[in-house]
Amino acid sequence: MTLQHADTSNDESKTRLRLWLRLLKLSSGIEGEIRRKLRDEHDSTLPRFDVMAALMRHPEGLKMSDLSGYLKVSNGNVTGIVDRLTEDGLAVRVAVPGDRRASLARMTPKGIQTFEDLAAHHEDWVNGLLDGLSNHECHTLIDLLEKAMLNKDNSDEHG
Amino acid sequence: MTLQHADTSNDESKTRLRLWLRLLKLSSGIEGEIRRKLRDEHDSTLPRFDVMAALMRHPEGLKMSDLSGYLKVSNGNVTGIVDRLTEDGLAVRVAVPGDRRASLARMTPKGIQTFEDLAAHHEDWVNGLLDGLSNHECHTLIDLLEKAMLNKDNSDEHG
Repeated sequence: MTLQHADTSNDESKTRLRLWLRLLKLSSGIEGEIRRKLRDEHDSTLPRFDVMAALMRHPEGLKMSDLSGYLKVSNGNVTGIVDRLTEDGLAVRVAVPGDRRASLARMTPKGIQTFEDLAAHHEDWVNGLLDGLSNHECHTLIDLLEKAMLNKDNSDEHG
Repeated sequence: MTLQHADTSNDESKTRLRLWLRLLKLSSGIEGEIRRKLRDEHDSTLPRFDVMAALMRHPEGLKMSDLSGYLKVSNGNVTGIVDRLTEDGLAVRVAVPGDRRASLARMTPKGIQTFEDLAAHHEDWVNGLLDGLSNHECHTLIDLLEKAMLNKDNSDEHG
């Protein structure tokens, strides 16, 4: 009477369900490991890392509302994270010409250096966590995940 | 200056990083879709679904502490969810013989029926979201994800 025994399922449907459970387990496992290493080894968090990554992609600066849109988290949380980054000298807020109430967040040189160091660690962690797979297997997985994703983008058809 | 440009990376390391980003994107996308459908179509939530699934796997009943251990969420949250399930007649709390302070949560027949209905929908959603993949492709993915997972379980070696 577990998920695998729903009356309506056939073998292919059960296989896709199994695939989803494996996908979820692996990605939760890796994400948990990254959160743990950010916390224990760098006194940081995944949302903070994600905010820095978004700011790195926008050297021209980002409004809080755009930033929270990219990250799909609340404005309040993003503002708190940017405040902390600013206190730590990793980001600055600059005025938006012609809009007194808005400000843009931008990385400082120290922030850029800090992020690049963190990103190199992040890449090492991911590389270590996935090193049971050959390069060829990684490419096979990427192709299949992208194929699955294409369909996901059209998921309204299955609504 | 994005993640892909860390100085230390070589091609294989970049491929694994790309794999991780695809994995994260697909699993977040599917999870978001499942959360949305549970909320909009069944007035439910993923933590509630997960609690019911755990209780279904333990017809003998589960203590709150065991339940929160399985789900890796706080006791308080699990207790709140079980309270709601109990109010809705989907679960009951029964005394533990010989331990006055502990109680076990168990599904009721109505709860079992409700969960089986939800689980069948859940399987249909997953099946629809992943139906861009052939059965053979799904098996290839499962094999590769399990291979990656095996390594993940030994991740302390990479600490």
